[in-house]
Amino acid sequence: MAHLNAEIISIGDEMIRGARLDTNTQWLSRRLAEVGVDVQFHTTVGDTLSHNTDVFRIAMRRADIVVTTGGLGPTRDDLTREAVAEALGRPLTLDEPSLQHIQELFARYGRQMPERNEVQAMFPLGAKPIHNPQGTAPGIDVIATREDGTESRVFALPGVPAEMKTMFDESVVPAILDRSTKKQFIRHLVMKFFGIGESDMEQRLGEMIARDREPRVGITVSSATISLRISALASTVEECEKTIAVTRAEILERVGELYFGDGESFEQQHAVDATLRDLGQRLAVIELGRAAPLGDWFAGLGDSPAFSGGLSLGNHADLCRITDVQWDGDPGATGDQDETIQKCFDVVGQRFEADWILLVGDYPALQSDHDRVQPPEEVTFTVRDPAGGIHQQSKRLGGHPSIVHPRIAKAALMFLRECLAEAIKS
Amino acid sequence: MAHLNAEIISIGDEMIRGARLDTNTQWLSRRLAEVGVDVQFHTTVGDTLSHNTDVFRIAMRRADIVVTTGGLGPTRDDLTREAVAEALGRPLTLDEPSLQHIQELFARYGRQMPERNEVQAMFPLGAKPIHNPQGTAPGIDVIATREDGTESRVFALPGVPAEMKTMFDESVVPAILDRSTKKQFIRHLVMKFFGIGESDMEQRLGEMIARDREPRVGITVSSATISLRISALASTVEECEKTIAVTRAEILERVGELYFGDGESFEQQHAVDATLRDLGQRLAVIELGRAAPLGDWFAGLGDSPAFSGGLSLGNHADLCRITDVQWDGDPGATGDQDETIQKCFDVVGQRFEADWILLVGDYPALQSDHDRVQPPEEVTFTVRDPAGGIHQQSKRLGGHPSIVHPRIAKAALMFLRECLAEAIKS
Repeated sequence: MAHLNAEIISIGDEMIRGARLDTNTQWLSRRLAEVGVDVQFHTTVGDTLSHNTDVFRIAMRRADIVVTTGGLGPTRDDLTREAVAEALGRPLTLDEPSLQHIQELFARYGRQMPERNEVQAMFPLGAKPIHNPQGTAPGIDVIATREDGTESRVFALPGVPAEMKTMFDESVVPAILDRSTKKQFIRHLVMKFFGIGESDMEQRLGEMIARDREPRVGITVSSATISLRISALASTVEECEKTIAVTRAEILERVGELYFGDGESFEQQHAVDATLRDLGQRLAVIELGRAAPLGDWFAGLGDSPAFSGGLSLGNHADLCRITDVQWDGDPGATGDQDETIQKCFDVVGQRFEADWILLVGDYPALQSDHDRVQPPEEVTFTVRDPAGGIHQQSKRLGGHPSIVHPRIAKAALMFLRECLAEAIKS
Repeated sequence: MAHLNAEIISIGDEMIRGARLDTNTQWLSRRLAEVGVDVQFHTTVGDTLSHNTDVFRIAMRRADIVVTTGGLGPTRDDLTREAVAEALGRPLTLDEPSLQHIQELFARYGRQMPERNEVQAMFPLGAKPIHNPQGTAPGIDVIATREDGTESRVFALPGVPAEMKTMFDESVVPAILDRSTKKQFIRHLVMKFFGIGESDMEQRLGEMIARDREPRVGITVSSATISLRISALASTVEECEKTIAVTRAEILERVGELYFGDGESFEQQHAVDATLRDLGQRLAVIELGRAAPLGDWFAGLGDSPAFSGGLSLGNHADLCRITDVQWDGDPGATGDQDETIQKCFDVVGQRFEADWILLVGDYPALQSDHDRVQPPEEVTFTVRDPAGGIHQQSKRLGGHPSIVHPRIAKAALMFLRECLAEAIKS
């Protein structure tokens, strides 16, 4: 079957003016790819009716699926309903059940529905409302028939990301699957990897990430962590899960040594936390260079019994000051300071009652010029194990200023995971 | 004079697939507004020739100015030259000076120009190259004449942000100014504010931020800091600067109490640093809640003599542990712990040789769901002045997870600035 193609339209003056970055369109692009739809155009347009109508006419001509975000609110700036109706050449009509639904929502908060909200129950003739479980504005689902008899299906969603995403997953995906294929079920699995660049990962996966593979494997990168999202379409849920398991095994065969867990929000600190809990041991982290991503991430686990505390300081000299240890090193060298660092570790280990200590030194200062990639600088990870053994690793890490610190913190976690694995083996 | 209108086109499969966020288009939208051009459409298209040609035809029809980014590289995926030529109905021809320039660039690095780079010297008939001081790919500047005799001017720029921005400022802006007006000079001034929301700022500025005001005043917000960018167009530089000064004074009259300095990259820590240097005093910061934005910002000033050190910890109890002070407070209350905190301050002040101490407690844990706004939580700022006096302020602050910590850090700096001003007065 030929793939359906799609256009995504984002509506609003704040987008056109550049006041806000359009993350909705990025999200929709990825999601549409997962259900096998080829996104070919993104269009952004301000709150001007004639421009909106023009944009809708063009999209209905060139795309099988049109997904729009924004312009469904109750104010006069919200023009999506009108623009869709005009592009279709159909009148707007009142949908009584939608009106009732909106009135009930207001009543639930003890308020009378303002008159202007009535417009949110108006739909182009022949359109169906898309249920919005989180807000007042229902979406619009309508089919445009072209002169040659082919069709373009328009899904108009609100611009509020949380509402848009729920409506897309709950209503638009089933409608697209229903239309494009007999395979009506979709299931996903996210696998997480660290320690490889995106293009190397692509190379090692080879044909596994081809756009027309089934199940499809999508790559996304967030601050140097790679997520592989397996999306399986099938006629039963069981079949989805079976094909996902096969693809998962194939991926582990190719890049298993970089894998650390499953799940969209599963990170290396979750893996470390699980291991430490199993061991009944506790970790303290010391971060130098005035940044504290690791402390922040471990704190984000809630009150984990495996995390005893975090400390962030400017540099080694400050670590000595705060632990009242005589500073006798050169701030540049790290190897010669073993004794000083040992003493600092003793103080921190005691005061925080920690079995393991992870020291990251130093996070580099971040460049303020966000267009420029930061050159790699050496950073050293020092791990003290419960027996007092010291393990060190130095890496040269750089990248875009916004990801340099997380990348360093993640490399430190990877080293800590290796130390933990070593300790468990012996 | 009627305003020119514009369309921005972003080209590349990585954009269409949602693999990368399109920040170029946002930047161009703001810049075009500053030179008085109304941006009305954004379009994104992948690396497919027929789609590109289609998109260029539509843009040349509806926009006076078309600015594109991407697709100018030497590979077969780079289709912008071909698409522009096809949309114009003109052949591609070799520009000898451009070819020479590219060959020279390679020669400078001791390399022979690969054959495929020759394509970067090809231009649609009648086009002019746009000089690219930072890369090999020159841009394209070409005028399309419509059937009705009106014109659309296309500027094709590379997708690399640093190259694109330089070329836009150095070549596209002068060309647009030359075309749209007799006012050939543009000058900017950025004023910085903290302590007010964007919509309140807009309200207080009123008609000053109207789109057709001259000089134009643009608002942008970055993590709760508001920048007002005054852009003056005039026939001499002196005239630009004069009108900027008048507008600046007008702005200070309206919102002067929230103003802290001039300059795109001037932040509150620069203001604090300058004051402390004048006083010959030093500051240490303690940040609780496992985050260290303030330490990071002050470290970013370089080796300022006014910044003696930063410390980031989980909570008050951890602060007591690391300073070896007996913990006797309730982690929730802050007022009752004055004595404990005083003792901790004594230790930190001594070890870091600091006259001033700023304590931020606590930064809240960040929600992982980035679609959801974080509800306001109380955070307390404590300042110890050189005489040992304690000043406190509590605020309830929330917002998008990505800006909650910077917003808290900035509110803390605002409070510290007030304390410093108080100290100078007395």
